[in-house]
Amino acid sequence: MLNYSDPHPVSPEELQRYKSFALEVSSLAGKVTLPFFRAGVAVANKGDDGSFDPVTEADKGAERLIRDEIAKAFPDHGVLGEEFGLVEGNGLTWVIDPIDGTRAFMTGMLHWGVLLALFDGAKPVLGVMHQPFTDEFFIGDGVTAEYHRGSEVRELRVRGCASLADAVLTTTGPQHFSEPELEDFVRLTQAVKFTRYGGDCYIYAMLAMGAIDLATDSSLKPYDIQALIPIIHGAGGVVTTRDGGDASMGGFCVASGSAEIHEAALRVLNGGAAP
Amino acid sequence: MLNYSDPHPVSPEELQRYKSFALEVSSLAGKVTLPFFRAGVAVANKGDDGSFDPVTEADKGAERLIRDEIAKAFPDHGVLGEEFGLVEGNGLTWVIDPIDGTRAFMTGMLHWGVLLALFDGAKPVLGVMHQPFTDEFFIGDGVTAEYHRGSEVRELRVRGCASLADAVLTTTGPQHFSEPELEDFVRLTQAVKFTRYGGDCYIYAMLAMGAIDLATDSSLKPYDIQALIPIIHGAGGVVTTRDGGDASMGGFCVASGSAEIHEAALRVLNGGAAP
Repeated sequence: MLNYSDPHPVSPEELQRYKSFALEVSSLAGKVTLPFFRAGVAVANKGDDGSFDPVTEADKGAERLIRDEIAKAFPDHGVLGEEFGLVEGNGLTWVIDPIDGTRAFMTGMLHWGVLLALFDGAKPVLGVMHQPFTDEFFIGDGVTAEYHRGSEVRELRVRGCASLADAVLTTTGPQHFSEPELEDFVRLTQAVKFTRYGGDCYIYAMLAMGAIDLATDSSLKPYDIQALIPIIHGAGGVVTTRDGGDASMGGFCVASGSAEIHEAALRVLNGGAAP
Repeated sequence: MLNYSDPHPVSPEELQRYKSFALEVSSLAGKVTLPFFRAGVAVANKGDDGSFDPVTEADKGAERLIRDEIAKAFPDHGVLGEEFGLVEGNGLTWVIDPIDGTRAFMTGMLHWGVLLALFDGAKPVLGVMHQPFTDEFFIGDGVTAEYHRGSEVRELRVRGCASLADAVLTTTGPQHFSEPELEDFVRLTQAVKFTRYGGDCYIYAMLAMGAIDLATDSSLKPYDIQALIPIIHGAGGVVTTRDGGDASMGGFCVASGSAEIHEAALRVLNGGAAP
């Protein structure tokens, strides 16, 4: 399990190098996943023992590639991945979700991505979300955040949304909440303009792009959220646990495009009345 | 309002011509929508009176283009579109949803598309779903169905799923059901393997591709479903209203990858026990 410790110092030059590496390696990992995407039909009747599972193959292959590249480039860094667990390092830890949104991937849908973060012991200092089918990259370092697609590069910027009543809320699915959490969430849906379901990492990317005001999910693991935190912060947004704490270790997380609606959303989730 | 009448005969040669036209014109309509996609941030502060609505502009622009092209190519055909209503014709009616999934479009998400169908008075005889951001086309004529992306062309084929317990169910969002419908839907979610939320037209396209077993939505309009019917049928799937009737006029529709799970799903939705 990943734990908090004293932050490992990262110089601006090192951060730049880690960013280039993260973009490159997430792109390579994406290329590993694509042959398995929507491959279900073609292979469904080929496995004699029914053991071929394209998502698992894609997941493991992508994480293995990222781990191999980290071992080559930064042999003293630690690694935490969804598929192959934690290897401790010098205080810097790469945090990998090779396919965030596996059920989207399994069902041929588009809202999934490769997530890669660098955790310095106290917080993720950079994050990349990459959607290989659409060739999109979202990258942030907590101060700035960018969107890359082919030759297109643009700054990611949350949109200002002053009031919960004007906010667009998203969540991956109501079934991910426990019963009492769902009651809190439903209260929040009643306070916002409208709610959209589905999305995994993609909704947090769209929040950073200024297309969504609030995103929340429960039961997140560190590798589900760490890559997204520096992107959201870099775009000017806020992300915490539902009680306002640090979101690096996951749990019930809330991301917002502005401090005002973040505060208002937490109040409603924690039993307060809508403003 | 679109009504049923005697089917207008369409020869195989005419159908081929209509197919080429539908692919071309949906592609052009997609090009109209793209400049408005994710344009919210860039333009949000430019409109003095706050009246600029990118989705409405995209929706209207795309439908206008399709209508203009139909008027040029087939001046005696009728047209029904979401934005500009019905113009009656010679018995053949083009049915347009310029952007199906406007809320996905508004929030920068990817599960939306241009829908175009040709209704012969009794049923839609061809349908196209086009996602311009990913450059994907799903086209069907009730007998065959294809997926086009760049130079990639493949046959669409549903997957066989013999049992409801193994089925993957999708719906655009629980909030689209009325209270009693939601109870029926929740019963169905309890009978399947798992349920995914979000998707609009995209979930029906994925059903045709064999990635999803069941898709259902309530309160559909004819233009929400007509383009998808010939694609689903062409891929070997089934689509009806929840009471087993023709889905052309919309309502509470259910699409399935096999006749077995379709029958089983309708039974559960209509109050029967899961098999």
